[in-house]
Amino acid sequence: MSTDISRLRDFIVRATEIVGATKDEAAVLDQMRPLLQDLVSHDDWLPEEYTRPHPQYYQQYLLHCDPLERISVVSFVWGPGQSTPVHDHTVWGLVGMLRGAETSESFERDAAGKLTKTDEEILRPGEICAVSPIVGDIHKVSNAVPDKPSISIHVYGANIGAVKRHVFVPDTGEVKSFVSGYANATTPNLWDRSREARGA
Amino acid sequence: MSTDISRLRDFIVRATEIVGATKDEAAVLDQMRPLLQDLVSHDDWLPEEYTRPHPQYYQQYLLHCDPLERISVVSFVWGPGQSTPVHDHTVWGLVGMLRGAETSESFERDAAGKLTKTDEEILRPGEICAVSPIVGDIHKVSNAVPDKPSISIHVYGANIGAVKRHVFVPDTGEVKSFVSGYANATTPNLWDRSREARGA
Ligand SMILES: [Fe+3]
Ligand SMILES: [Fe+3]
Ligand SMILES: [Mg+2]
Repeated sequence: MSTDISRLRDFIVRATEIVGATKDEAAVLDQMRPLLQDLVSHDDWLPEEYTRPHPQYYQQYLLHCDPLERISVVSFVWGPGQSTPVHDHTVWGLVGMLRGAETSESFERDAAGKLTKTDEEILRPGEICAVSPIVGDIHKVSNAVPDKPSISIHVYGANIGAVKRHVFVPDTGEVKSFVSGYANATTPNLWDRSREARGA
Repeated sequence: MSTDISRLRDFIVRATEIVGATKDEAAVLDQMRPLLQDLVSHDDWLPEEYTRPHPQYYQQYLLHCDPLERISVVSFVWGPGQSTPVHDHTVWGLVGMLRGAETSESFERDAAGKLTKTDEEILRPGEICAVSPIVGDIHKVSNAVPDKPSISIHVYGANIGAVKRHVFVPDTGEVKSFVSGYANATTPNLWDRSREARGA
């Protein structure tokens, strides 16, 4: 029982071409957004091992990282009741909802370090939202489904698991550094095109 | 028990930079050769799951494929007594011996399709050989160690598992098309640099 991963492969090829052609964040996001939207509008390509919730923690499964670390693609899996702390990214990111639903609460931080909630939106399958130091970088994400895991596919302008970023405690203004890493020691083999190549 | 995969990651980053800078095969091979030689001079970085022989067949484990398919890196594992058929590659390849030893027999093919053996060499750990339509593309590889698996690390100028190439039957001159594919559905996660990033 193997999943046809070609939608993800095609997305990664095109995303690689985009970041190879321009470093302009707005141009990258404009081109990447419809590709990610198309990817998460189909829920038939993600292998089961990258969909598994953990009983305690939300999971971050790396699906692909560009060797030059210009992009990474990650499957985020929230179990029932799970949420992130309030955090930033320091690089651009696009979030595409694949399965279930998630709530994203946006925050702004003033010069004194005080956090104010500025927005709250629910993302449903096929929907996209963006984060970055330019468009708004601080948010908290929660599973919006009470009884099932939710999964979103994230694309970032860096190897996000190795980026030094920040967690914020809204009540106290406290800031802590963190580096997320990844939950998985193996990534999907996206490149076995032998069946199609034999048929061609 | 996790293997420190950073030597392989560093190799892939530099190999990606090389093929991003030039398309000239001789220049690519000149620059890639010392990097691969250094990589296979250390046998401490290959995770165990990409070292496993199969009782019947030699194994080809994809370690990395460039999204633009300019390079792929593969772990070849020969069990005792195993060998490839006589085959070609159609793209450049570098073979670096990691563990054990292998025999490579080189062939030339004349206009009538007749194969003549032109060379035979034994590759030992830390040693490199090259194949390509320019430097000589037809060979047969065998495990040179009678009682243990041998492992070599191959770098190719394409997604080698998806390339249409050829197997030759020396006695009859018969040629068959083949596409090798890969033995593995998951590849190593090379990009979890979170431990080093946290320490930095
Ligand atoms: Fe986030
Ligand atoms: Fe070969
Ligand atoms: Mg020799």
